[in-house]
Amino acid sequence: MRKFKVAGAQLGAIQKSDSREAVVARMVALMDQAHEKGCELIVFPELALTTFFPRWYLTDPKEIDQWYESEMPSAATLPLFEKAKEYQMAITFGYAEKTPDGHHFNTSIMTNKDGEIVLKYRKIHLPGHGEYAPKRAFQHLEKYYFEPGNLGFNVCANLGGVMGMAICNDRRWPETYRMMGLQGVELVTIGYNTPAYNAERRDEADGKRLFHSQLSIQAGAYQNSTWVVAVAKAGNEDGHELIGGSLIVDPNGFVVAQAKTQEDELITADVDLDESRFGKETVFNFAAHRRVEHYGLISSQTGVEVPEEVKKQLEQE
Amino acid sequence: MRKFKVAGAQLGAIQKSDSREAVVARMVALMDQAHEKGCELIVFPELALTTFFPRWYLTDPKEIDQWYESEMPSAATLPLFEKAKEYQMAITFGYAEKTPDGHHFNTSIMTNKDGEIVLKYRKIHLPGHGEYAPKRAFQHLEKYYFEPGNLGFNVCANLGGVMGMAICNDRRWPETYRMMGLQGVELVTIGYNTPAYNAERRDEADGKRLFHSQLSIQAGAYQNSTWVVAVAKAGNEDGHELIGGSLIVDPNGFVVAQAKTQEDELITADVDLDESRFGKETVFNFAAHRRVEHYGLISSQTGVEVPEEVKKQLEQE
Repeated sequence: MRKFKVAGAQLGAIQKSDSREAVVARMVALMDQAHEKGCELIVFPELALTTFFPRWYLTDPKEIDQWYESEMPSAATLPLFEKAKEYQMAITFGYAEKTPDGHHFNTSIMTNKDGEIVLKYRKIHLPGHGEYAPKRAFQHLEKYYFEPGNLGFNVCANLGGVMGMAICNDRRWPETYRMMGLQGVELVTIGYNTPAYNAERRDEADGKRLFHSQLSIQAGAYQNSTWVVAVAKAGNEDGHELIGGSLIVDPNGFVVAQAKTQEDELITADVDLDESRFGKETVFNFAAHRRVEHYGLISSQTGVEVPEEVKKQLEQE
Repeated sequence: MRKFKVAGAQLGAIQKSDSREAVVARMVALMDQAHEKGCELIVFPELALTTFFPRWYLTDPKEIDQWYESEMPSAATLPLFEKAKEYQMAITFGYAEKTPDGHHFNTSIMTNKDGEIVLKYRKIHLPGHGEYAPKRAFQHLEKYYFEPGNLGFNVCANLGGVMGMAICNDRRWPETYRMMGLQGVELVTIGYNTPAYNAERRDEADGKRLFHSQLSIQAGAYQNSTWVVAVAKAGNEDGHELIGGSLIVDPNGFVVAQAKTQEDELITADVDLDESRFGKETVFNFAAHRRVEHYGLISSQTGVEVPEEVKKQLEQE
């Protein structure tokens, strides 16, 4: 407890035609590897059970429904929970959730070492767009397929520490880490599916995309003095490239493990949750240094508003 | 306007015994260089006029007072403002401010191209400690010498764009950039004096310190799609090393210029403020993607509070 080995279980491509059972078998194989290495926590990516379907514009409700899970565990995913218990290994993975009352979320769950769900998170920062956009090089219809998460940025007790989750685009938003940091988070797991090209700026390819991903994750870790385990679905899904670069970052912001392939690949690191203490007690001692009286706009104003005075001056210039 | 050349004017060490006049002469020499290169904005560091005096524990009010400016421009700094007007070059620099009613702030000002002050900022995130701390390798008494800034994170119109300022430790706090980002900032200037060693963790030396500085600046630029010009006072001040590494970061988070020495050194870059638009209109379109209903703690809770339920579970484990 508090000291353990963590695994980031990157998944390679999942094609549209791949079954849940086939994917779960790949995930179990990665759990086998992690168990051999003595890992007590394994982190799988966002939408781990299927292809990244928001790149496809679907209109038939039945066709849409097939991408969602209406229960968790489900028959297809039960082996993950059973294996977790057998191996005494906490797991976390993402999936598309359809609630009994018909709401749709981009969700992740985390279990304890007995395979019991101890935290659920629903993605708050949905990227992309809500309607079919013919001008884009490809679609990224998360705002069409999902509602923004309604559970907040919550944390749980797991493996003797405070853990939280975020999903994909959440990692670019400092509010994500800060909300959990204010609750004392010591380890954040993040799954992602990130296109290797910017649909609106084709010259922004792999290198830059990996840089932006890693920059945001390292800054979030450092500025909240927390471990972060960020895990990709990578590779070529039905002709669409996803970045890999799964990584484990320590509470000082340094990368301690990183995936080298675009395939199913396990990365591991020895985690000591107490390493998060130094930062939390010194440079990022929030109680000593934060000045909430000057942060009002962050939680009261959604979009950009250039102050009226400044606008007027710019018009006069 | 909106397209111009910017200069980061790193200053090397300023010793305790150096006069304001001697420092201002060095600053003017850097303005001469910047003018030759066609720069229309020059950025000097935090506490640019003196040594980083918060490393010294002083108790005699007269001795303390000598480090503050009670007016700006003062006789000693007037050449900077005159040169700004002559060269049609906006300037910004930091200094210790004593107000007429006896308050003390770590302050920076920014002028327009006529040398008129258009923005004042008072440092909000004061690092270090408020009382003499014998256990530290050296003192960092900013909380002793200054009150937290009381002007907020404001922005101004300058050179056809929206500009803001932050000072030193502010750059490690994502709230700093976000508060200005929400006001449409397109260029942020930051001055800093950063000890090359962590006073509480001696093994954290130059390399790590530079990494943390740069990481925070790049993330702030990327996540708010703004230019950032961050400028150090560097070198060895009376036996105390400061990091250099002054840098200019574009709105995509990439470093476009960086200082190589620990001395007075000018770095420059061609700025196009319109480059900040793409990010602000896509990935970081705040109006489309931010979810303020989940950010409440950021502006309502200063320190860490582990949720009661989580605390209980941790105690039981």
